Amino acid sequence: MRTGEIAVPLPESFDAGLFYIGRIRTPWTRRSDCPRNARESDAVCTIEVDERFAAALRGVETCTHLLVLYWMDRARRDLVVQAPRHYKEPRGTFALRSPVRPNPIAASVVRLLGVDGTRLSVVGLDCLDGTPLVDIKPYFASTDAVGDAVVGWHAARER
Amino acid sequence: MRTGEIAVPLPESFDAGLFYIGRIRTPWTRRSDCPRNARESDAVCTIEVDERFAAALRGVETCTHLLVLYWMDRARRDLVVQAPRHYKEPRGTFALRSPVRPNPIAASVVRLLGVDGTRLSVVGLDCLDGTPLVDIKPYFASTDAVGDAVVGWHAARER
Repeated sequence: MRTGEIAVPLPESFDAGLFYIGRIRTPWTRRSDCPRNARESDAVCTIEVDERFAAALRGVETCTHLLVLYWMDRARRDLVVQAPRHYKEPRGTFALRSPVRPNPIAASVVRLLGVDGTRLSVVGLDCLDGTPLVDIKPYFASTDAVGDAVVGWHAARER
Repeated sequence: MRTGEIAVPLPESFDAGLFYIGRIRTPWTRRSDCPRNARESDAVCTIEVDERFAAALRGVETCTHLLVLYWMDRARRDLVVQAPRHYKEPRGTFALRSPVRPNPIAASVVRLLGVDGTRLSVVGLDCLDGTPLVDIKPYFASTDAVGDAVVGWHAARER
């Protein structure tokens, strides 16, 4: 743990269970290789959906963008305040997009290039190769896009 | 099940576990009362974060918008093709924002009105009162907002 970070004891049991519904294939096999955020890379990644759920893709091909949820299975879950290496000041987990969080679910908006059976070619991911997939949703600009949203601490930091 | 819907057997065991980290308080206690989508309502809802995770909120107050993940615990999980009541044609689960999905995690963008201890006042939710909370993330317009995204089947349907 880094200076200023705070861990808490986690609850003794889980409240709900997740199924992995597929895997994400990316060019990155070490955490240090991953782009710092998805907009920094235009690498084409592949989302491989399990055959069991193949029929659930019907209509996905009509979407230009998807919201992809995946499970960052290598991250610890007990830090409530953390200091990611590229920021100086420790901040609350819910003010950060760090993989370290009580439920390590990442949410990324991807551009869909194409669908081939149960394989989706997309741009906009930054995760490790083999990352477990937990959901795919159509991205609706009407409800999901807020162009003027501001993360105050981040905007202040950049000035 | 409605005509055209398809269910599949789910895997026999879960791959990962979730903690509920709080609850969402909304005005809606029956599914039929919930707005059809979050933009249809400007009701102020309250996100109650468990005390255990209080410190994780440090810095959240600087955000204008948050991405909230919650668990739609009353939804079945085995439909891969479904016909929501307000659409005629059955479509794949991953082309829909229906609560019925293998991992019933909802993702909603909310506007943050204020933070009072572990309670966040927000606008932009459409879920039942008491819905379990699973994550809160800062919403970054730079990566999360795609104003020109299109869901083709939905756009075609509206014409």
